Amino acid sequence: MRIDLNSDLGESFGRWELGDDEALLSIVTSANVACGFHAGDPSVLRATCDRAVEAGVVIGAQVGYSDLAGFGRRFIEVPPDDLTNDVIYQIGALDAMARVTGGRVRYVKPHGALYNAIVHHEEQAAAVVRAVELYDPRLFVLGLPGSAWLRLAAEAGLRVVREAFADRAYTPRGTLVPRSEPGAVLHDPDEVAERCLRLASGKGVVTTDGSVLPIAADSICVHGDSHGAVQMARAVAARLRAEGIGLTAFADTAGE
Amino acid sequence: MRIDLNSDLGESFGRWELGDDEALLSIVTSANVACGFHAGDPSVLRATCDRAVEAGVVIGAQVGYSDLAGFGRRFIEVPPDDLTNDVIYQIGALDAMARVTGGRVRYVKPHGALYNAIVHHEEQAAAVVRAVELYDPRLFVLGLPGSAWLRLAAEAGLRVVREAFADRAYTPRGTLVPRSEPGAVLHDPDEVAERCLRLASGKGVVTTDGSVLPIAADSICVHGDSHGAVQMARAVAARLRAEGIGLTAFADTAGE
Amino acid sequence: MRIDLNSDLGESFGRWELGDDEALLSIVTSANVACGFHAGDPSVLRATCDRAVEAGVVIGAQVGYSDLAGFGRRFIEVPPDDLTNDVIYQIGALDAMARVTGGRVRYVKPHGALYNAIVHHEEQAAAVVRAVELYDPRLFVLGLPGSAWLRLAAEAGLRVVREAFADRAYTPRGTLVPRSEPGAVLHDPDEVAERCLRLASGKGVVTTDGSVLPIAADSICVHGDSHGAVQMARAVAARLRAEGIGLTAFADTAGE
Amino acid sequence: MRIDLNSDLGESFGRWELGDDEALLSIVTSANVACGFHAGDPSVLRATCDRAVEAGVVIGAQVGYSDLAGFGRRFIEVPPDDLTNDVIYQIGALDAMARVTGGRVRYVKPHGALYNAIVHHEEQAAAVVRAVELYDPRLFVLGLPGSAWLRLAAEAGLRVVREAFADRAYTPRGTLVPRSEPGAVLHDPDEVAERCLRLASGKGVVTTDGSVLPIAADSICVHGDSHGAVQMARAVAARLRAEGIGLTAFADTAGE
Repeated sequence: MRIDLNSDLGESFGRWELGDDEALLSIVTSANVACGFHAGDPSVLRATCDRAVEAGVVIGAQVGYSDLAGFGRRFIEVPPDDLTNDVIYQIGALDAMARVTGGRVRYVKPHGALYNAIVHHEEQAAAVVRAVELYDPRLFVLGLPGSAWLRLAAEAGLRVVREAFADRAYTPRGTLVPRSEPGAVLHDPDEVAERCLRLASGKGVVTTDGSVLPIAADSICVHGDSHGAVQMARAVAARLRAEGIGLTAFADTAGE
Repeated sequence: MRIDLNSDLGESFGRWELGDDEALLSIVTSANVACGFHAGDPSVLRATCDRAVEAGVVIGAQVGYSDLAGFGRRFIEVPPDDLTNDVIYQIGALDAMARVTGGRVRYVKPHGALYNAIVHHEEQAAAVVRAVELYDPRLFVLGLPGSAWLRLAAEAGLRVVREAFADRAYTPRGTLVPRSEPGAVLHDPDEVAERCLRLASGKGVVTTDGSVLPIAADSICVHGDSHGAVQMARAVAARLRAEGIGLTAFADTAGE
Repeated sequence: MRIDLNSDLGESFGRWELGDDEALLSIVTSANVACGFHAGDPSVLRATCDRAVEAGVVIGAQVGYSDLAGFGRRFIEVPPDDLTNDVIYQIGALDAMARVTGGRVRYVKPHGALYNAIVHHEEQAAAVVRAVELYDPRLFVLGLPGSAWLRLAAEAGLRVVREAFADRAYTPRGTLVPRSEPGAVLHDPDEVAERCLRLASGKGVVTTDGSVLPIAADSICVHGDSHGAVQMARAVAARLRAEGIGLTAFADTAGE
Repeated sequence: MRIDLNSDLGESFGRWELGDDEALLSIVTSANVACGFHAGDPSVLRATCDRAVEAGVVIGAQVGYSDLAGFGRRFIEVPPDDLTNDVIYQIGALDAMARVTGGRVRYVKPHGALYNAIVHHEEQAAAVVRAVELYDPRLFVLGLPGSAWLRLAAEAGLRVVREAFADRAYTPRGTLVPRSEPGAVLHDPDEVAERCLRLASGKGVVTTDGSVLPIAADSICVHGDSHGAVQMARAVAARLRAEGIGLTAFADTAGE
């Protein structure tokens, strides 16, 4: 048994630092690198790709709405054609950085409000799928099981990676409990590690009403924007390894 | 005898339109396409690449300072390492658009204040050269003869394209008369066409004191941001053709 | 009988020019001046205020989403508190320009997608109302009759100005026919002038099914982003004057 | 004897936090609040003004180049007229926030590269002076003794506040040792407190060659972007108070 661990990286911007990228790159197998639209600047992108390549971590494009002020967390009604082009632009810019540092962009994971929007927003989901198809149909796409995004990507023949969240509570219907509700985010490293173990073993996830949701995950998302988050990511990785679950990316770093 | 005609394109942004790209693409052989930092947005970039490919015009990356408000015309003291990364980012983003539309970025021409800065600013010139080397050392670079930019590019083994300006007055020392001075910009299409003919024939350019400056040009820059400018570009192209000068890009569109 | 004519102004940005502000300032009585978030830069704002003051035209703040790339025409899910602050910031910045040129911001008119959103979006409507209350409760607010925006503003004790559109078709329910539908925008200057005359005379507007909608308007919005638009605005103003309708702003320019 | 302590505040932006504003507002007497061009967003500005008013700290506009990516630390060759307008815009936007929270902008302190540029750059210095004159000639201006900025401000009749830096080494000529050189920044809280005591007592500053420079300072700048910086600011304030130096702002908060 094996699973991928992914995390958001490269989200600093100019003078502003965010996240402990160094620590996370020693834990995860896939790096969702920001592309400059919601976070990240060209120097941050290059440094992040550089470290990812050195750490043997697979590089993915964490594409988002063009909204630094909102960190990509505010839905924007971007017309689909413009969204397709925004995504192509971001993948291309990051891929340039990846190649310059000896890597390649191997997958695409939308960020923040775009991630949430394309769970249901068919037009925007199709627009992002179209961008991946146009840029390179061999790229993997990462997202929420059951989302329009993964469904349309699969229909387009793209390679789909299903993601679960290590520290988020799930409703019985398989959606995430909104961050605004109590209990939405789990804070106990042991509990989180236990959940990840279940996920990686194909046993699904225990939801808010105690029922078991049989979600299948190819990758687990861990966070790194606080000291506690890094500790939790480390605990998850250690527990999985201790139980014989291999931590392996879904793609190789080289791209071919 | 043959020469290349280049022009700045893709400089619209969102709601704001600038330049008659359609007309210019029927005249020039090389398109300096803006990359989103001083002008151009992803949809503008893609549409411009699309039309350039259709017209058989070679695509170049018109890289600039990150300054929409100043249209890239204000010098910014960007640290060299950041400038290198800004340029890689821009080339990569535009190359994504070029490839999606069936073309490739074949050359790099800095824009505005960056163009002027790297005539003399050794550190910034070296930073842009470094970006091209890292991204793809087979790219051509276009710039002012005698500039630090072209000298350092040649030393780095890059393929250098020397540019002259159709409608700008030259000082006896080979620099352009600043736009702030009277007579800096020529407006008579016949005179401009005549100068271009001399340039293309290797006869140099007549300077402000009447002396002849033996500049060698591989490409002539024409403008298209007004009706008059397009008319002038057309006049230049017609005159050159009439005198048997072939209008041919210095590169092919395909990239190999 | 009298009515106000308003128009969007100051929507150029840096190198990019938009609209014939000079012409419009000789026609309208109220200027909706962009504030730098969807369009306009500080120098454009100041020049526009300067000309408005000279022309005796009342200055209003045309506040919008922070989205130059989308020209403020894309809905953004800005949290209400942030939206309130964005609007205060914009009014304050424009008011500085107005005061420096001898005028004052006298009213607020939201732009584009924000204008449309707060017809129904209660939270965002309340957020903009709150901004006006906090900044200066003596400011007038301009918007669509029947909108949440005007209703909440009135409830808050703000002075409300009801607006009609000169060149837009209305449905029998009083909403504008979406621009995407045929016949949404009227192009015949005589027809448009006739409609404006009815509006100014309190006779309402003829809708798409021929019924008469009894909308009361204190101000009519005219456009100026094309030669034809300016001509139409001029025709509207001339017709109203010819019929004895006074063109008068709802506020004085001085602010007290 | 008394002196003012000032510090840069409100430099967070969206998701990115910077500096311990809470701690600093309990130490300093004047708050240089960012205005959104180099740092700060409308919600950050408002929250910072709100806390400053509550703490009885005087609010100043920390105006800068429009350069989030460079945090205002890169010189930009902004034409003087545009710079004047950029500064008016920033002061107006911040003043709106200050007034909404019960305060007023009472002074202007340029930030980063603009601060450094207008030590010598006469045109940009005059442009910033002009902005203050136009916006409100009763505002104080804060800057480096001997700078073109303070000289031109004084000539224009503005009220000038001379600033010294708590933790920066001075050359015998009265300029700051560039950050790139060793010893440019002092790290020993006792040494720094001792220097501030000398400054506040009118005894000048000991320079890098041991000579005493008789600079007169009305305000001392302390930093707060790290835990150590806050500790140092606290040590400076405690030492000054212990020696009977009053910590008092050069202006009152109310503005009249």
